[in-house]
Amino acid sequence: MLNKKYSIGIDFGTKSGRAVLVDVDNGKELATSVYKYPNGVIDEYLPLENESIKLSTDWALQDPNDYLEVIYTTVPEVIQKAAISPESIIGLGIDFTACTMLPIDKSGEPLCNDKKFRNRPNAWVKLWKHHAAQPYANKLNEVAKQRGEDFLERYGGKISSEWMFPKIWQTLDQAPDIYKATDRFIEATDWVIMKLTGQEKRNISTTGYKAIWSKDNGYPDKDFFKSLDPRLENVVKEKLTTDIYALGEKAGNLKEELAKKINLRPDVAVAVANVDSFVSVPAVTVSKPGKMVMVMGTSICHMVIDEKEKFVPGMTGVIKDGILLGYYGYEAGQSAVGDIFEWYIREGIPSYFKKEAKDDNKNVYDYLEEKAAKLRPGESGLLALDWWNGNRSVLVDADLTGMILGLHLNSKPGEIYRALIEATAYGTNMIIKTFEENGINIDELYACGGLAKKNETLMQIYADVTNKPIKIAASQQTPALGAAMHGAVAAGSKNGGYNDINEAIKNMAHLMAKEYHPILENVEIYRDLYSEYEKLYDYFGRGENNVMKRLKKIKQNYE
Amino acid sequence: MLNKKYSIGIDFGTKSGRAVLVDVDNGKELATSVYKYPNGVIDEYLPLENESIKLSTDWALQDPNDYLEVIYTTVPEVIQKAAISPESIIGLGIDFTACTMLPIDKSGEPLCNDKKFRNRPNAWVKLWKHHAAQPYANKLNEVAKQRGEDFLERYGGKISSEWMFPKIWQTLDQAPDIYKATDRFIEATDWVIMKLTGQEKRNISTTGYKAIWSKDNGYPDKDFFKSLDPRLENVVKEKLTTDIYALGEKAGNLKEELAKKINLRPDVAVAVANVDSFVSVPAVTVSKPGKMVMVMGTSICHMVIDEKEKFVPGMTGVIKDGILLGYYGYEAGQSAVGDIFEWYIREGIPSYFKKEAKDDNKNVYDYLEEKAAKLRPGESGLLALDWWNGNRSVLVDADLTGMILGLHLNSKPGEIYRALIEATAYGTNMIIKTFEENGINIDELYACGGLAKKNETLMQIYADVTNKPIKIAASQQTPALGAAMHGAVAAGSKNGGYNDINEAIKNMAHLMAKEYHPILENVEIYRDLYSEYEKLYDYFGRGENNVMKRLKKIKQNYE
Repeated sequence: MLNKKYSIGIDFGTKSGRAVLVDVDNGKELATSVYKYPNGVIDEYLPLENESIKLSTDWALQDPNDYLEVIYTTVPEVIQKAAISPESIIGLGIDFTACTMLPIDKSGEPLCNDKKFRNRPNAWVKLWKHHAAQPYANKLNEVAKQRGEDFLERYGGKISSEWMFPKIWQTLDQAPDIYKATDRFIEATDWVIMKLTGQEKRNISTTGYKAIWSKDNGYPDKDFFKSLDPRLENVVKEKLTTDIYALGEKAGNLKEELAKKINLRPDVAVAVANVDSFVSVPAVTVSKPGKMVMVMGTSICHMVIDEKEKFVPGMTGVIKDGILLGYYGYEAGQSAVGDIFEWYIREGIPSYFKKEAKDDNKNVYDYLEEKAAKLRPGESGLLALDWWNGNRSVLVDADLTGMILGLHLNSKPGEIYRALIEATAYGTNMIIKTFEENGINIDELYACGGLAKKNETLMQIYADVTNKPIKIAASQQTPALGAAMHGAVAAGSKNGGYNDINEAIKNMAHLMAKEYHPILENVEIYRDLYSEYEKLYDYFGRGENNVMKRLKKIKQNYE
Repeated sequence: MLNKKYSIGIDFGTKSGRAVLVDVDNGKELATSVYKYPNGVIDEYLPLENESIKLSTDWALQDPNDYLEVIYTTVPEVIQKAAISPESIIGLGIDFTACTMLPIDKSGEPLCNDKKFRNRPNAWVKLWKHHAAQPYANKLNEVAKQRGEDFLERYGGKISSEWMFPKIWQTLDQAPDIYKATDRFIEATDWVIMKLTGQEKRNISTTGYKAIWSKDNGYPDKDFFKSLDPRLENVVKEKLTTDIYALGEKAGNLKEELAKKINLRPDVAVAVANVDSFVSVPAVTVSKPGKMVMVMGTSICHMVIDEKEKFVPGMTGVIKDGILLGYYGYEAGQSAVGDIFEWYIREGIPSYFKKEAKDDNKNVYDYLEEKAAKLRPGESGLLALDWWNGNRSVLVDADLTGMILGLHLNSKPGEIYRALIEATAYGTNMIIKTFEENGINIDELYACGGLAKKNETLMQIYADVTNKPIKIAASQQTPALGAAMHGAVAAGSKNGGYNDINEAIKNMAHLMAKEYHPILENVEIYRDLYSEYEKLYDYFGRGENNVMKRLKKIKQNYE
């Protein structure tokens, strides 16, 4: 026990941050601490005391100070809960939602902390699911296509409104004074590492996947940015940096003052920042091609690594070394999954149903799952399109919206909930099929995240719809474990950590015994239902009937 | 006051029956009494004490004994409430939902009252919205089309599954023993008149609109029925009657025993039975072409009278003298309107919303309307197809289902509710346009029924979507008033009533001062939104994508 070494991983999610303290030897999670962001997702009003600033539809902001509170609160708590000596902690890693970005001043301070800018939405953190930059993404894609920019094919043919440059451009266009006052735009994940270490060491993943950068080609050139907007010509030089670091590298040691505040030694190795989805790949034991990793929570991220570089339409990116060193890392995603279920539970569950759940001594989630579990494939008579937050892959279009069809006077909550689950499973199946049709083979699925652990009905539906077996991460906190694994790699073997991520996977990552296998008779019915989904997907999503976009435009006239 | 004469109208609705006692001189409603059917709409389990008989989807039954209870309860109550002498009541009329039909034995007793058949769904009253006869309607339409049957064009090209022969055929096919034991199938409205007077005098309206009968051509011929099913060859002769009576005629006087029971003189004139929608036309003052009458409740019936006979696709029927003597009466309809809102309030309103309403001292309907009223056309971003109970006009297809599109993570109940209202208004507009395109002109709308009286937001939306002014019946109980008017006509002028319905209209029917007029800027936005609705209507409703039917088929595999 004297020689036990520990690493801490901190996962910054959409609504909260969670730290986990991990035994470097075997990956055992000794303690966890969750801290909910006091200001949460800011999508209606800025959290100001004396002023009411309403946000338009599609805005989603955060407060960067909430991230620091996570560190101050959760790190001391896991150490205390685990009852180990802080001396034995050798590494710390973090992972984050992305692209979640903010404008900072020369000293690294967020612009929204400046009184001058506090009542200005563009000064705050733009969360990954901020979709108000869609017009800028549209224009960027149009210009890039006209100019025949090579980078487009690395991103499935389209740059998402969720990413760095549309978000920067929105700031420039709507708030030129804020753009001017911004010293750098930075991913929140890199900003937190800077706050921890005093070092700005931007990671390869967010730069590659979200900021149109690649090892071989760097950023798009000045001419391209100039053709978007003359004021953007020198955006890279003026507002970003070309200094990029690989995953698993050490960013630095903790700043002394901060180390004291959170009860750690200053010589703890801090890894270069990571992204919640990517960091999960090693944490679910995956280090080879043919396996798709799904991080299943408010949204789903789908990751595959492969030796080949293929251009798959609608994936969100392929970046060399972007997920694991030595492989091309592919990412695709669905922009809302758990978020849809939560919307439904919040906005659609009638009070009699809540009462029934209560009378049955169940919480409403369990009762709803129980009702959905009793239905067979297609028994609800309903079919939905899972676009409540637009479509990330494979259409890359934030202006699409959700649909549900088959409703009748006896439609019940359990049926609607099951139809919503099925719709998200069809969305994942569409992504898998698109990978396979473009030469990236997928034999089995690996899942982690809240939905994968908690919702057995959902997981069985995913196995049945995709007709593939699904393995589940053993960890309750997969991204945080992955972050801790990177912390152990940053510490290195001479400090009791590991030389590379493969060593860390071998020792620290585990799977659950329970696996999900497709049930043949369900697979057959879902094949038919999926083809119905596919037909509506094409009809509404690929230009045959752009009613969703036209409705959105009319709605936006009122904003 | 000594010479005051009164008439009673009883309206048998979907969930309850209501009587109104009316001053024959001026149409003033002196008293109303409502009685809720104890067994309501039977659509899940038969109301048996010792057995659990589950109904399949699409079944909707009623208990005929509930109708008699309405008479026993409400007639004495209105007399008592009005504090008038029973001696001064000269007439009684009724109106009913249709086609609401039942099998009876030789003595007129419903088969479901026979112990032998009580646990058999086919022995009960099939309510108008019973849709489980759809396969029989499909087959009937197919055969009629093949044979080039002329009657099809009188019914917009299609016989509805809601009507008499599909419902009879379902009974024959699923329960041949019940069919055999049936002496006659009869509309509930005619059955009630038979119970009141001892006379079976079937009315022209339900026979014409629901049982493929016309003054000139009678019923379809034996050959046609034989080609459907050899056992049906003599269905008219064996199970129906060709003895049909005009509206406003006297069916007879009250049976003595019954008169005593309900506190009336036996010489009260009872009018031939009527239908809730048709009886409303004179009760909203309409006696001329160019005016569409909408009875707005759980569903909407749309009626127009005209001098010309035109064949309008998808209307539910054109019958000479079917609504008012001397005119061709046209009927069209939407099979669910208020029912959709009620479904939404029951199955879709979250508890926080109910709490907000309560905190605001409002009931949930008013609160919902208030939220919907605050939105401008298109502001919800949502678009729905109002097919929760299939589509009556103009598609005549019970296998279509509801759809809602444009949903996103911030969609709120007020927005969904408004989208549902708008969808039903688009459905009405589709009916109006179809009439106009086929030579039946419509200048203004007349509305009655619960929705027309209570929901100002809805009525304004209807005026804006249709771009037509809407006048509202003054009566709180329009169909019951219309029934009472027919009672006064059945009594005749020599008994203090009227010689014909036009005289009754002049004296007894009134409009409210409040009218709804289209608001130009709304009209313009709704023109665009309606064209989106129209596009989806055609796509899902006219064969381009039959996904709704395929989903229903898969669902039915589990029944």
